[in-house]
Amino acid sequence: MRTHYCGLVDEALIGQTVTLCGWTDVARNLGGVCFIDLRDHEGIVQVTVDPSNAEVFKVAASLGYEDVLQVVGVVRAREAVNAKIRTGKVEVIATRIEILNKAAPLPFHAHENPGEDIRLKYRYLDLRTPEMQRKQRTRIRLVQALRRWLDARGFQDIETPILTKATPEGARDFLVPARMHPGEFYALPQSPQLFKQILMVAGFDRYYQIARCFRDEALRADRQLEFTQLDMEFAFVRERDVQDTVEGMIRDVFREVMDVELDAQFPRMTWAEAMRRYGSDKPDLRIALELVDVAELVKSSEFAVFAAAAADPDGRVAALRIPGGASLSRKQIDEYAAHAAKHGAKGLAYVKIDEAGEISSPIRKFFAEDAFAALLKHVGAGNGDIVFFGAGAYNKVSDFMGALRLKAGKDFGLVQDGWKPLWVTDFPMFEWDDEAQRYVALHHPFTAPAVDDIADLRANAKTAVSRGYDMVLNGNEIGGGSIRIHRPEMQSAVFELLGIGAEEAEAKFGFLLDALKFGAPPHGGIAFGIDRIAALMAGTESIRDVIPFPKTTTAQCLMTGAPSPIPDEQLAEVHVMVRPKVS
Amino acid sequence: MRTHYCGLVDEALIGQTVTLCGWTDVARNLGGVCFIDLRDHEGIVQVTVDPSNAEVFKVAASLGYEDVLQVVGVVRAREAVNAKIRTGKVEVIATRIEILNKAAPLPFHAHENPGEDIRLKYRYLDLRTPEMQRKQRTRIRLVQALRRWLDARGFQDIETPILTKATPEGARDFLVPARMHPGEFYALPQSPQLFKQILMVAGFDRYYQIARCFRDEALRADRQLEFTQLDMEFAFVRERDVQDTVEGMIRDVFREVMDVELDAQFPRMTWAEAMRRYGSDKPDLRIALELVDVAELVKSSEFAVFAAAAADPDGRVAALRIPGGASLSRKQIDEYAAHAAKHGAKGLAYVKIDEAGEISSPIRKFFAEDAFAALLKHVGAGNGDIVFFGAGAYNKVSDFMGALRLKAGKDFGLVQDGWKPLWVTDFPMFEWDDEAQRYVALHHPFTAPAVDDIADLRANAKTAVSRGYDMVLNGNEIGGGSIRIHRPEMQSAVFELLGIGAEEAEAKFGFLLDALKFGAPPHGGIAFGIDRIAALMAGTESIRDVIPFPKTTTAQCLMTGAPSPIPDEQLAEVHVMVRPKVS
Repeated sequence: MRTHYCGLVDEALIGQTVTLCGWTDVARNLGGVCFIDLRDHEGIVQVTVDPSNAEVFKVAASLGYEDVLQVVGVVRAREAVNAKIRTGKVEVIATRIEILNKAAPLPFHAHENPGEDIRLKYRYLDLRTPEMQRKQRTRIRLVQALRRWLDARGFQDIETPILTKATPEGARDFLVPARMHPGEFYALPQSPQLFKQILMVAGFDRYYQIARCFRDEALRADRQLEFTQLDMEFAFVRERDVQDTVEGMIRDVFREVMDVELDAQFPRMTWAEAMRRYGSDKPDLRIALELVDVAELVKSSEFAVFAAAAADPDGRVAALRIPGGASLSRKQIDEYAAHAAKHGAKGLAYVKIDEAGEISSPIRKFFAEDAFAALLKHVGAGNGDIVFFGAGAYNKVSDFMGALRLKAGKDFGLVQDGWKPLWVTDFPMFEWDDEAQRYVALHHPFTAPAVDDIADLRANAKTAVSRGYDMVLNGNEIGGGSIRIHRPEMQSAVFELLGIGAEEAEAKFGFLLDALKFGAPPHGGIAFGIDRIAALMAGTESIRDVIPFPKTTTAQCLMTGAPSPIPDEQLAEVHVMVRPKVS
Repeated sequence: MRTHYCGLVDEALIGQTVTLCGWTDVARNLGGVCFIDLRDHEGIVQVTVDPSNAEVFKVAASLGYEDVLQVVGVVRAREAVNAKIRTGKVEVIATRIEILNKAAPLPFHAHENPGEDIRLKYRYLDLRTPEMQRKQRTRIRLVQALRRWLDARGFQDIETPILTKATPEGARDFLVPARMHPGEFYALPQSPQLFKQILMVAGFDRYYQIARCFRDEALRADRQLEFTQLDMEFAFVRERDVQDTVEGMIRDVFREVMDVELDAQFPRMTWAEAMRRYGSDKPDLRIALELVDVAELVKSSEFAVFAAAAADPDGRVAALRIPGGASLSRKQIDEYAAHAAKHGAKGLAYVKIDEAGEISSPIRKFFAEDAFAALLKHVGAGNGDIVFFGAGAYNKVSDFMGALRLKAGKDFGLVQDGWKPLWVTDFPMFEWDDEAQRYVALHHPFTAPAVDDIADLRANAKTAVSRGYDMVLNGNEIGGGSIRIHRPEMQSAVFELLGIGAEEAEAKFGFLLDALKFGAPPHGGIAFGIDRIAALMAGTESIRDVIPFPKTTTAQCLMTGAPSPIPDEQLAEVHVMVRPKVS
């Protein structure tokens, strides 16, 4: 239907007749001559219609936004060059215009900056904008670059089922009633975790899959019901085999897609160090601020909150110095306190030192003068700074002080440009869940502990470290993985420590325990969040921008209207009914 | 953990120390020397353990099938070369063996030829066999070759949702209760059909996706609940643009994966011709047999069944000559009649001419001698042949005579080796559904009719031809596609002809009708069945062999035990309950 793409018409074609297809980006009648900006996926070219060609002119004069056209014309050098577009040196003098499809008046124009709901309802119109095309293309190029890289290195792209068994990995499963098995259900996979481990047992060596995963969780701005991960697994490996390989992959892919050179070696940091210095297991290293432990300097203070936390072996007293932070008003300081509270703080102490060296601080009175001076010296506080202090349980203090660090980084323009990747390693094996009064797995229950000895693990569960690792980029966990348990006895022991009894383990994970029995190789892997990496590359905060057809935070597709009611007869076929409302 | 792969140890490594990891394929103690066949995904190498190395020997002598090992040893030229394996000229003299994971006694050995249920339950053991590895690799290579081909030509790999709206395309939807919307459901997509059309409206130009599709239908040997298709769509195209492109793709991919050269131009055949000559819309051209129409020659016969069908404008009387078919016994002929009956025949007439020219036929008596001779001459029947005759409604006769043709082809060894692709085109737009008393779409309701004029389509719905096309290979429909409707009025008219009222159309497909209104380009596409093509390439009848984790014909995963009962509390969270059994 066409000889060339609109956006690729250039001077080499001058004098030639071309046939183009595309959308009417805009059509104007200027001084008796019609100009049509004809657009396709490659770009825009100007089509010019002279009134001497009465029939064609009549068509051109009738055009509205987004009418779909086929245009035949001759390429000519343009008098008024438009340097803004690639085809700006030429125009096409139309000899024939056919309207392939007339467009109704549009519900909105992109420049009107409609709300996201309208954009999602008419997703096909939103996706036509150059900005959305650019974002989608970034994702397409990312996935293509990853596949090419993996294929060239012998990774095998293997499919795992979408209709599978409900085997909770922490999040809530999506359920699918089984028509052929009344009262039974399939579940959508939260990840291909178990299948990829099974593939290693089955003798595959290096597996990957760009896999759709499903978690029925509350949606936040950066979560979707379904999301996409690059899922990988390797047989006969230790941590560094996996890490070095995928670090190389990420570096190569950023070079290819973004023309960016990441660190030749990503920094490595234990979980403990990351929590201590940055109050986060996914520190944003673009922000130079660090937390400073001050327990030793405050343990004798009269401020009970500090003294108690400093004396508690599981406690922490940490300080965050913000250079220039003395400019914060009382109201702004309250905002910081509120932000800390949102992240679990019971209170937030501060010391503000104005440019003249004048100190204002609600906690100064609890300190002897020299102790206070020593404290300020220890945290490096000087004129113009503010220092926030948090005290309490170690992880809680780390969390909210880490959150303050991020807020301060943004508020004070302390986020450097560029890309700061790192590895976080040596995660705790277990986390104590106060509510459930039992351990939960920090990664997932298939993660190997650093110790090989089961008795040792049992005896030191609280402090046990796992063989898990995360790749972090600019404060985002973009990849998470681990060496897996490959011995059935260890897997059973870990289930037991997690409060999963032998019977429950057999019912839920019996096939995995079986598989580990019949010759499972040592193996490990990782999964990368494609949506998040694409969003980072595309420079957008929302992963919705890099998902062609995303759902809202209320879990709806505004374009198709999913989810929707289903006739009861159809539900009867799959042996379920809508539950009567309990009033 | 290793320096080399087992299957790649070769003479270049003689004298070197290598570290290998793999499975104990077999371990034998022969005359005081231990030989271990160590296997990984690349193949097998012989590890030899001399008793002089007492410690290592003790480990070696203890080994059982499938124990997972790490072996350090020195590569040496082998005295007794084993020409059957790639590494047969060398062996590895073990200096250290570590058992990485001991394997329990296996539930079966591959050579015992266990039933498919056992193989599916222990899928990880079954997948370890060289035969299953070969089949899986064929699939992996197919998908990789397709992607590489498409990426090189500017096709964009774009994801479409798995949780979407119930929009029946003919088959039954899988439903997923929506937690955040009590009483509402998502559906799993039967194909990305509507989304890919929307992508064309959104300005993408050439889309592809290796997409998972879901149909809750009765499972046959070659069907699965979920299956994989290469889904493609093109903007601004006509039939030949799509067909020529993907024909080239299939040719290139067969060359790359199978080292096979397909026809430089695939034969093309209308649906009418395919039905007439082969009694099938997916003729297996490897079988040279053809149907012959004989209505003209039998319309005056006294055999009422023939005469009536010959006189009916919607009837058909067809003959199938099977060279050498006179060898069929009475019992075998009955089997052919039963096969025809299974495919809709009410009866099956035949004429058998033995080697001596003796004729036996239950219908001879209905014909005058010269008419009978003319009939035999017309169908080319000679000594040693049998000719089957079918009479009745055109499509029914075509169906069962086509089925006989396939059976005869197999029974008489008339299926040629090799690959016979073709295009089938010009399908009927609609099929009359006797039960529902209305038209149904032969492809799907978004397929464009060959006529552009709505009045014309309405007036001639019965004989209307669509712009659909199928790619057929060796009797399998491996790809099906069409030019789509891009004008909203035509889409509404087709919905109407299919008995989908304006209200229903709006509720189910309103977003598509909307999208067509706001500047939809002419577009078309195709979808290829990856499972089927992989099975054909791998030389297996069952697509289960090329799916890593397939379900049984009873829709179960025997390995994980899906589907399974779900606690009622969990169902309550998604607002459904299991329907009480109606007794």
